Amino acid sequence: MKVGIIGLGLMGGSFALDIKKPFPNSEIFGIDSSSKNLDEALELGLIDHKIDYKDLNKMDLILISVPVNNIFGLIDKVLDVVGDNTLVFDVGSTKEPICKYLKNHEKRSNFLAAHPMAGTEFSGPTAAIKGLYVGKTNIICEFEKTDKKLGKLALEIFDALKMKTIYMDPKSHDVHVAYVSHLSHVSSFMLGKTVIEKEKNENNIFDLAGSGFESTVRLAKSSPNTWTPIFLQNKTNLAAAIDEYVTNLNLLKELIVEENDEELNKILNNTNRIKEILNKK
Amino acid sequence: MKVGIIGLGLMGGSFALDIKKPFPNSEIFGIDSSSKNLDEALELGLIDHKIDYKDLNKMDLILISVPVNNIFGLIDKVLDVVGDNTLVFDVGSTKEPICKYLKNHEKRSNFLAAHPMAGTEFSGPTAAIKGLYVGKTNIICEFEKTDKKLGKLALEIFDALKMKTIYMDPKSHDVHVAYVSHLSHVSSFMLGKTVIEKEKNENNIFDLAGSGFESTVRLAKSSPNTWTPIFLQNKTNLAAAIDEYVTNLNLLKELIVEENDEELNKILNNTNRIKEILNKK
Repeated sequence: MKVGIIGLGLMGGSFALDIKKPFPNSEIFGIDSSSKNLDEALELGLIDHKIDYKDLNKMDLILISVPVNNIFGLIDKVLDVVGDNTLVFDVGSTKEPICKYLKNHEKRSNFLAAHPMAGTEFSGPTAAIKGLYVGKTNIICEFEKTDKKLGKLALEIFDALKMKTIYMDPKSHDVHVAYVSHLSHVSSFMLGKTVIEKEKNENNIFDLAGSGFESTVRLAKSSPNTWTPIFLQNKTNLAAAIDEYVTNLNLLKELIVEENDEELNKILNNTNRIKEILNKK
Repeated sequence: MKVGIIGLGLMGGSFALDIKKPFPNSEIFGIDSSSKNLDEALELGLIDHKIDYKDLNKMDLILISVPVNNIFGLIDKVLDVVGDNTLVFDVGSTKEPICKYLKNHEKRSNFLAAHPMAGTEFSGPTAAIKGLYVGKTNIICEFEKTDKKLGKLALEIFDALKMKTIYMDPKSHDVHVAYVSHLSHVSSFMLGKTVIEKEKNENNIFDLAGSGFESTVRLAKSSPNTWTPIFLQNKTNLAAAIDEYVTNLNLLKELIVEENDEELNKILNNTNRIKEILNKK
C-alpha cells in the first residue's frame, strides 16, 4: 500500500509508525512545508521517500495531518491530482469548517473527515510514537459523503489499528470536542499562565509542583501552532464552554468565601462521578 | 522505632509502607475515627496494632494524617499524653491555621508542621502505595519552634525517605500552595463539573475522552472530605488565585472571539515555558 502523509508531526509521524504493523508492505511517502521536518522524518525512518504534490496520484491513501488552518487550499492541491482510487483523510480536531469547505467539491467522495482522539503534549517528527492510535476512539463525520469503496478501505485501516470508530455529524462533533477536549487545553494553558505570573521566582514552581499540578498543567506544553487555529475554528462552541467553566469557578469561589462546606462537599462529591464515567472506558 | 499514625488513609497508610524500608524495625500503631478503616489498615498490613490515644505516650513518632479540619482538638489530645521524646508531625496541605492554633501551646516544641507535596487522586487505606513519599518535596514550617533533638529526628526520617526538604513560613506556604496545588484541584473539579453538566449523555464523555481530558480532570476524582476543608482553610489565598485564573480565562475567550491569532499564539507560546520549568525537576 502506498501511503502519502502531508505533515510529519506527532499525528502524521505516529500514523507512519502505526500503519506498518498491520500493513508491513506499506511504503510511506512524505510532504511537509518544513524541509527540516521532512529531512528529520526521513532520518527517523518515519517515511521512506520525500515526494511532491504531483506524485500524490500514485497513492492508495493520503493522510493530511497539518494544523487545522493549513488544510484549506492544501486539500484542493491534493484532490486536484488524485484519481478515483485514492482515499484522502484528515485527523483535525475541528470538523465543521473542513466539511463545509468541501461540501460542493467535485472530489468530495475521495475525502473522509476523521478525528482520532489521540495525541500527546509533544510536537514535531521526534514526537512520533508507536501505538499512538491503538485503542483510541476515532470520530468519522459525514461518512455517507465518502465513496463506498474508499470508506470501506478507511474502516479496514482504522480497524487494523484497533481504533474504536464512532460516527457523528460535524456540528455535534465540534460541540462535544469543545467540552471534552478543547476546554481541557484552555483550562490547562490558563492554569500554567496564572501560576507562572504569580510565581515570578520559577524555583517555587518546580520545588512545589506535585504530581497533581503536573498532570493538570500537562496540556499547557502543547504546540501553540496546533492549538491556536483549533481554538479559533471552534470559537463559538469554545467561548460558550469557557463561559460555563467560568460560571462554575465563580460559584465554587463564592461557596469557599461563604464557607459553605455542605454545598462545597456536595459539588465535589457529585463531580467525583467522573471516576465511574471514565472507568467505563 | 514505635510509630503512631492517626488517620490511615492515602497519606498515613503510604507513610506506614514507606517508613518500613529505611527503618525495618519500625512497629506501626494505628488510630482512626473509622473503625472500618482501622480494621482495613490492619488487614492490609499497614499497621501492626490498633491503639488508643492513651497509648501514644509510648511512641517515638506520631504522624497526624487526617483531613485538615479534624486536626484541631485532636492535636490537643495527642500533645496531652506525649512526653518530651515524642515527635508529632502533620502532613496537612494548609499550614497557617495549625501553626496559629498551636502558637502558645505548652507542648508546641513536640510538634513539627510539615507538608509533603505527595498524593494521588485516591483515598482510604486501600489507596496506600509504596514510594508515595520517595523523592518528593517536603515543606517544613516554623522549624525553629520544634525541639532541636526532635527536629533532627524528623530530618533523619525525611532524608531516609529521600524527600527534598525545604523551609517556608506558614503564610508564604499557604499562598504558594494556593496556586501550585489548590488551584489545580479547583480547576480540575470545575472542568469535570462543566463537562458532566453539558454531556447529559455520559456515554459521550467516555467515548470522546482522550488522554488529555483524562489527565486534566484526574484531580476531580479526589476526596471531597480531604479537599473541602483545605479549600476553606485557604479561602483568602485561593479566592484570589481563582480570580486571577478567571481573569486569564476571560482574556483568552476574548482573544478567541476577536480571532486575535497573533496574541493567542504569543500567550500559548509563553505558557509553554512550563515545560522547561517542570523539566528542571
